[in-house]
Amino acid sequence: MLDSSTLWACVEAVRRRRPLVHNITNFVVMNTSANALLAVGASPAMVHSPEEVTEFVGIVDSLVVNVGTIYSEAASAMRLAVETANAVGKPWVLDPVAAGISSYRRQLCAELVKNGPRVIRGNGSEILTLAMDGAGHGRGVDSGDPAEAATEAATILARVTGGVVAATGEVDVVTDGSRLLRVANGHPLLTLVTGMGCSLTAVVGAFVAAEEDALAATAAALSAFGVAAELAAMRCNGPGSFQAAMFDALYNLDRATFVEKVRVS
Amino acid sequence: MLDSSTLWACVEAVRRRRPLVHNITNFVVMNTSANALLAVGASPAMVHSPEEVTEFVGIVDSLVVNVGTIYSEAASAMRLAVETANAVGKPWVLDPVAAGISSYRRQLCAELVKNGPRVIRGNGSEILTLAMDGAGHGRGVDSGDPAEAATEAATILARVTGGVVAATGEVDVVTDGSRLLRVANGHPLLTLVTGMGCSLTAVVGAFVAAEEDALAATAAALSAFGVAAELAAMRCNGPGSFQAAMFDALYNLDRATFVEKVRVS
Amino acid sequence: MLDSSTLWACVEAVRRRRPLVHNITNFVVMNTSANALLAVGASPAMVHSPEEVTEFVGIVDSLVVNVGTIYSEAASAMRLAVETANAVGKPWVLDPVAAGISSYRRQLCAELVKNGPRVIRGNGSEILTLAMDGAGHGRGVDSGDPAEAATEAATILARVTGGVVAATGEVDVVTDGSRLLRVANGHPLLTLVTGMGCSLTAVVGAFVAAEEDALAATAAALSAFGVAAELAAMRCNGPGSFQAAMFDALYNLDRATFVEKVRVS
Repeated sequence: MLDSSTLWACVEAVRRRRPLVHNITNFVVMNTSANALLAVGASPAMVHSPEEVTEFVGIVDSLVVNVGTIYSEAASAMRLAVETANAVGKPWVLDPVAAGISSYRRQLCAELVKNGPRVIRGNGSEILTLAMDGAGHGRGVDSGDPAEAATEAATILARVTGGVVAATGEVDVVTDGSRLLRVANGHPLLTLVTGMGCSLTAVVGAFVAAEEDALAATAAALSAFGVAAELAAMRCNGPGSFQAAMFDALYNLDRATFVEKVRVS
Repeated sequence: MLDSSTLWACVEAVRRRRPLVHNITNFVVMNTSANALLAVGASPAMVHSPEEVTEFVGIVDSLVVNVGTIYSEAASAMRLAVETANAVGKPWVLDPVAAGISSYRRQLCAELVKNGPRVIRGNGSEILTLAMDGAGHGRGVDSGDPAEAATEAATILARVTGGVVAATGEVDVVTDGSRLLRVANGHPLLTLVTGMGCSLTAVVGAFVAAEEDALAATAAALSAFGVAAELAAMRCNGPGSFQAAMFDALYNLDRATFVEKVRVS
Repeated sequence: MLDSSTLWACVEAVRRRRPLVHNITNFVVMNTSANALLAVGASPAMVHSPEEVTEFVGIVDSLVVNVGTIYSEAASAMRLAVETANAVGKPWVLDPVAAGISSYRRQLCAELVKNGPRVIRGNGSEILTLAMDGAGHGRGVDSGDPAEAATEAATILARVTGGVVAATGEVDVVTDGSRLLRVANGHPLLTLVTGMGCSLTAVVGAFVAAEEDALAATAAALSAFGVAAELAAMRCNGPGSFQAAMFDALYNLDRATFVEKVRVS
C-alpha cells in the first residue's frame, strides 16, 4: 500500500512547504513541541487566547489541539479554534491526553471528537476511552493498554469522525476506518522523556498540512519520528541526552536512512 | 541513624512502584519536573484545572504543590487538591517558591502550610519566611540565607505542620521536628539551571509516595538528586549540557555509586 | 563609536551585579529564557499574577514583557507591571512576539509601546508592524522581512518611545533614534530552536539593568548572544544539541573570544 518513497515524499513536502502550525497545547510540552516542529521544517505558533484564535486560524496551515493541562480560557479557545478551522477548511489534529482522568476531560474530548478532527493521535488507553467510554486503563498520562488492543476502537473512532486515528505504542496502529497500517518504528526511551507523544501529535499537524492523504501523512509522521528515535537512542547516555539527540536526528534525517529503517506495513 | 542501604532502598522502591505523582506546579519548570520524575522511575501528571483536580487526586499516589507562577485558577486548584489529598489520606509536598516576594504569596503559603504538607522543601530564605514571617532574605527565587541558617526555622515549622521540612542549599537540613539530618551532596551547577529545586521537590513527591517514613524518603530523594548532580558535573561543559547529564545520571544511578557517594549525617 | 572593550564591560557588569530580572513572558520560552538569564549571570524570576506584580516590580532590577502567549490575566499583569516600573523608574523591555497576527495583539502592543519601553527587541516584521501598522509581513512568530528592511521603522519607533529599538535577524539593527549600530554576530541555528529570540530579549533585560546606556547594553547583549551562538554551532550536531551548547557558550564566554569575534559597527 504505502511504500517508503511515498512516506519520504511527505517528509520532503513538510520541509519544502514549511507549514505554519497553530498549537493550543499543554504547558508541559509547549517548548518540546515547538522544537519538534522546527526540527521537521515546520513553523510552530502557540496562540491560545479566545480573543485571537479565530483570527489566527485564518492564516495558519493547520491546527493542533491538545487537552493536557486544560483550563477554562484554553477550553474556550479550543472550541473557537476548532469551529473556525472547520468553517474555513483547515485540517486539525486532536491529542486527547489522559482522556479518562476526569469527567470534565472526557466530556471536553467527546465534544472535540464530534467536531471531526482530521487525525486523532493518542496512546492505547486514550483511544479506547474515546471510542468506548470507560474501556481505557490509562494511568495519568501513561497508557495501561498496548496500542494493538485499541485496533478495533481506532477503527470505530475513525468511522465516526471520518478522519484518521492513530493509537501509538510499541507498534502503532493507524487507520482511516477502512485501511489499517502498523508502524513498528520507535524506541522505549520515548516514554522516558515528557511530551514526546504530544510532540509527535504536533508533527502530525505539520504533515497533514503538507499532504492531503491524512493516512499517508500520519504514517509518515509516525515513522519519521520513530526512525529519529532509533537513531537518537544510539547516540545518547539516557533520557536527558536522548531529547537533544532526537531533535538532531529529526532535523538531519535523510532519505537513505529513512528508507532503510522505516517499518510500515 | 539512616544508613546508605536504607536510603538506597527508597530509590529502588520508587523504581519498583512507579508512583503516579500529581503536580500543580509553575510554568517555568513543568517540563523539567516531569523529566526528573521520569528519570527516577515515577509517572508525572500535571493537572491544574479546578474542574478536575478533586477527581484526579483520588487516583494518584501523591501530590506536589508549587507556588512558583501562581495565578487565580491554579490557586483554587491547589486549595481543592490539598483538601482532597488530606481527606483521602494521600501525601502531599509543598514548594514555597519565592515565598516572601508578595503579601499575596505569603498568605497563600501560610494557608497551605496550615493544611499540613507531609514535606516542605524550600531554600533557606523560603523556610525562614514560612517559619518566621519576614525573617527570610530571599531575592526573587534565589536564597539570601544558607540552608544552615534555617535549621531552627525548619525545626519549628516541622513541629507546627507535623511533617518533614527540608531547607536545601550547599548542605541540606532535613528534620521532622525531632530528628535532624544533613545532606551534603549536590553541586553548584544546580543553581545555574532553572527549576532544579522545583524538580527536586517533585522527586520528593515520588519518594514519599513509595516510602512511609517521610524523613527517610526526603533524605533519599535529596541525596540521590545530589549524587546525580555530582556525576553530571563531571560530564558537562556548563549549565546547558549539565541538565541533560543530570537526568541521564538520575536514570542510570546504581547502588554502588550511590553508596560510595552519599553524604547523609 | 562602541568598541569591543565597552561592550565586554557590559557583559562583566551583568556578571558582577547579578540583576534580578522580572519576566512576564510566554509559556513556550519561560524555561529557556530563565536558563539564558542564569547563563549570563542574572537572576530570573517569572511572576505574572496581577495580585503580586506591583509589589514585585518594586524589588527587581528590570522587567521584561513578552506577549507571546498572551491571555487575560497576563495582559492585566503586564499593564500593572509596566505602570509600576515607570512610576518607580525601573527599566523595562518589550518583546512584541508575532505583533501582527491579531487585532487584539496589535492593540495590546500599541498600548505597551506608548508606555515607553527602554528597549524593544523584535524581528523585522514585528518592528515594521509596531512602527507602521500593517507594514510587516510576519508569518506567525517568524519574520517575513529582513531586519535591514526595518531600519527606518526602528528609527521612527525609537524616536516615538524615546528608547532603543533592536530589529534582529541575519544582521541586527539597533538604534536610539539618532545613533545606529549593526550587529553581525549570530548563526542560522538560532532560528531552529524555539524561544531563542525571546531569550535574547530576556538577556537584554539583564543588560539594561546593569548598564545605564541602553544602546550599549543592547548591542552588548546582542553581540554576546550572537558570539555564543557561533561558538555553539561548532560544537553541536543539530538544533537539539545546539541549545545546550548555546547556554554552555554563554556561560563560558571570555573576553579574548568575545573581542576576537564581536562584529558591531
